[in-house]
Amino acid sequence: MQFQLSDELIQNLEILIEEKNDAELLLLLEEVHPADIAEIITELDLDEATYIIKLLNSEKTAEALMELEEGVRERILDNLSSKEIAEELEEMDTDDAADIIAELSEERQQSVIAEIQDEEHADNIVELLRFDEDSAGGLMAKELVKVNENWSVTGCMAEMRAQAENVTRVHSIYVVDDKNKLKGRLSLKDLITAPSKANISDVYIPKVDYVNVHTPGDEVARIMQKYDLEAIPVVDEMGRLVGRITVDDIIDFIKDEADRDYQMAAGISEDVEADDSILKHTRARLPWLILALLGGFISVTVLGTFEGAMEQYGALFFFVPLIAAMAGNVGVQSSAIVLQGLANNTLRGSLMNRLVKEVGLSLLNGVVLAVMLTLGGTYLLGFDLIYGVTVGISLISVIVIASLIGTFVPIILDKQGIDPAMATGPFITTSNDIFGILIYFSIAKAILGF
Amino acid sequence: MQFQLSDELIQNLEILIEEKNDAELLLLLEEVHPADIAEIITELDLDEATYIIKLLNSEKTAEALMELEEGVRERILDNLSSKEIAEELEEMDTDDAADIIAELSEERQQSVIAEIQDEEHADNIVELLRFDEDSAGGLMAKELVKVNENWSVTGCMAEMRAQAENVTRVHSIYVVDDKNKLKGRLSLKDLITAPSKANISDVYIPKVDYVNVHTPGDEVARIMQKYDLEAIPVVDEMGRLVGRITVDDIIDFIKDEADRDYQMAAGISEDVEADDSILKHTRARLPWLILALLGGFISVTVLGTFEGAMEQYGALFFFVPLIAAMAGNVGVQSSAIVLQGLANNTLRGSLMNRLVKEVGLSLLNGVVLAVMLTLGGTYLLGFDLIYGVTVGISLISVIVIASLIGTFVPIILDKQGIDPAMATGPFITTSNDIFGILIYFSIAKAILGF
Repeated sequence: MQFQLSDELIQNLEILIEEKNDAELLLLLEEVHPADIAEIITELDLDEATYIIKLLNSEKTAEALMELEEGVRERILDNLSSKEIAEELEEMDTDDAADIIAELSEERQQSVIAEIQDEEHADNIVELLRFDEDSAGGLMAKELVKVNENWSVTGCMAEMRAQAENVTRVHSIYVVDDKNKLKGRLSLKDLITAPSKANISDVYIPKVDYVNVHTPGDEVARIMQKYDLEAIPVVDEMGRLVGRITVDDIIDFIKDEADRDYQMAAGISEDVEADDSILKHTRARLPWLILALLGGFISVTVLGTFEGAMEQYGALFFFVPLIAAMAGNVGVQSSAIVLQGLANNTLRGSLMNRLVKEVGLSLLNGVVLAVMLTLGGTYLLGFDLIYGVTVGISLISVIVIASLIGTFVPIILDKQGIDPAMATGPFITTSNDIFGILIYFSIAKAILGF
Repeated sequence: MQFQLSDELIQNLEILIEEKNDAELLLLLEEVHPADIAEIITELDLDEATYIIKLLNSEKTAEALMELEEGVRERILDNLSSKEIAEELEEMDTDDAADIIAELSEERQQSVIAEIQDEEHADNIVELLRFDEDSAGGLMAKELVKVNENWSVTGCMAEMRAQAENVTRVHSIYVVDDKNKLKGRLSLKDLITAPSKANISDVYIPKVDYVNVHTPGDEVARIMQKYDLEAIPVVDEMGRLVGRITVDDIIDFIKDEADRDYQMAAGISEDVEADDSILKHTRARLPWLILALLGGFISVTVLGTFEGAMEQYGALFFFVPLIAAMAGNVGVQSSAIVLQGLANNTLRGSLMNRLVKEVGLSLLNGVVLAVMLTLGGTYLLGFDLIYGVTVGISLISVIVIASLIGTFVPIILDKQGIDPAMATGPFITTSNDIFGILIYFSIAKAILGF
């Protein structure tokens, strides 16, 4: 039953666009969901995409535009007049419209807003543009259903019918007083099961979760997830109901956050997509590579101080990348566990317990790997046993230290109020490389005596 | 307005539990949300937690139990009798109850199910247990509101009032025929705005997204995200309506998937949390470390073949960890971008375009870094210029090759039907270490001639 994008469909559409066969195009796309229209548009070239957007009615294309990736959308909007963009915005919820407008140039914003016919809609959009995009104010939509606590259930049903026309989905009905202050909520279910003679003030639920326009987006996401909310009302500084945030926006927010964390761990500091420009990629990636290079300078220096070992124990240098790789991998593993624990708020117990556990875990792993390394180095690679034993003992120490660094650096950063997500990927691998090599050669020096 | 967990509250509760002051405890916890009760329980010791669970009514504790982490829940359930667990399950939706039962031992499952008083509820739970937990059947709940297409709107409202009592949230009303086959849907909004004399068959929407009991969970998540659905009906092989999946379960699913991807990238192959046992951590982490160790053996061997360079150009070996680190970091960056592109279905364009772009990007980054390395190596670290030039030229080649490996290995795996997420973290860093060192010394050999 699901829509499937096929090369055949795209070719078919391209021919119809070429022929300007509007009737056939409309027929073909009539039953297609806007989210699927967005997928189709991404496959077409810019002129074809613009042709489709102009051909279909705004109700459908408005939603399709929202589903597009920012880069594709930007190019299409560049091809539309301010009036055409305004028509699309009229069909969107205020939060989506504000997000789109925010992507336009300052100048374009004004001319588009001036073209919006529905003045209240335009007002609402302008209001939303004032908030930081990652705050509750920036995430909320103005569309919601609210009733006055002094109304009757019957009167309320009538009013609801009118208001609900403008709201895509009714999650909760919010109850306000005469000053528009949020008093509580009411579900549609409560409303239809309430005696029709009752007053709203008799049946509403006075306990309602809400956030302030300035609440950060990740806090909103946390609250909505924790309490399984499908929508949350937003109040202003005076406690007046000014908007609501729905769960679909929060799903996008959660996905974006997860993508960002993943990229951060891979040493990518800006939100980039595969199709972004080389310059944007360089800006996101180069800083971390420079950090790794500077760390590399330190490891070169450290190795240089052990130059004296080269003549008699040159083979020690062959094991350097192995030791560095193990230190890096162990550090990344430990930091990933701690970072997820911090993010999901599941990190409990004292630091001492964590220390004992991490040392136990890394000793266990370290001994297994050291035995493999000693045996492998001696019998597989054919080095003298003394090398195998030396690198084996070093490996245990390196793994223990690397796992402690991976565990405690993020915890310490977090306690200092610094984003602990910094402490993974390139940062942890680079510092663990340096410490790993230093420990390795210090132990080798102690054992072999050079 | 948000609940804040404080040490003071926990201490207070511990004293009251010690004193068995049930009246005061009930008063203190009366207004606390079940999700917050779960947080409190996690902070208490096992006996205290069990005391609270037994004290509060099942309606509240059932939801709190659902919010607990699996490990904590397991210990508490071990402390409860089968009858007590059954009482909790009676209060849960069928999907949650089935999830909890699935965590119990085979033997315990039977005795708990036998204690469930509501036979239909027990039947439903047993039915859900048959499905794979990551399939639509395993994710769905039996609770839903459905109406027959032949009913009138008025009759429907009455029936709805009855059905809605058992359903926490009404997202959509599903319309079925006499054989329980899914025909379409109706929103509560449509129902209250429809003329009361109409028949359901006149007002329902025949277009409805649905999934089959066997649809994989990630496909369900993709559909619900793409079409912004808050609930989706599930049908069996005969097209009969058997359950529905709500968006809050899908949010949990998305979060779990993101966590898993993040851990995979960090070289952790099982879903582990910071508080899991050392043995579980070892099982998740050791295999990747062994892989890295075996890769390390190869790099030792590669370095060994260039032993001849040591006498005259020993300093080349000092740059090995720097080169390996750059290769690893570049590879992880490239693979992260590609993996996200694959996961979000945003990777478009031909392989040739991608090749040209990746080479351009890595050449740009490579040249910048190589210049820094040559200058830094010569003037900062004091090596001969020939070293600086050699490692600089090598670095450019290493970065280009590493970024190509990072980009194309996941794409090739994906085309072969293998999970491309394998191709990041330890796997990419290990293989790039080896290739990086090989390229570095080959180029050095060509330039310096040893």
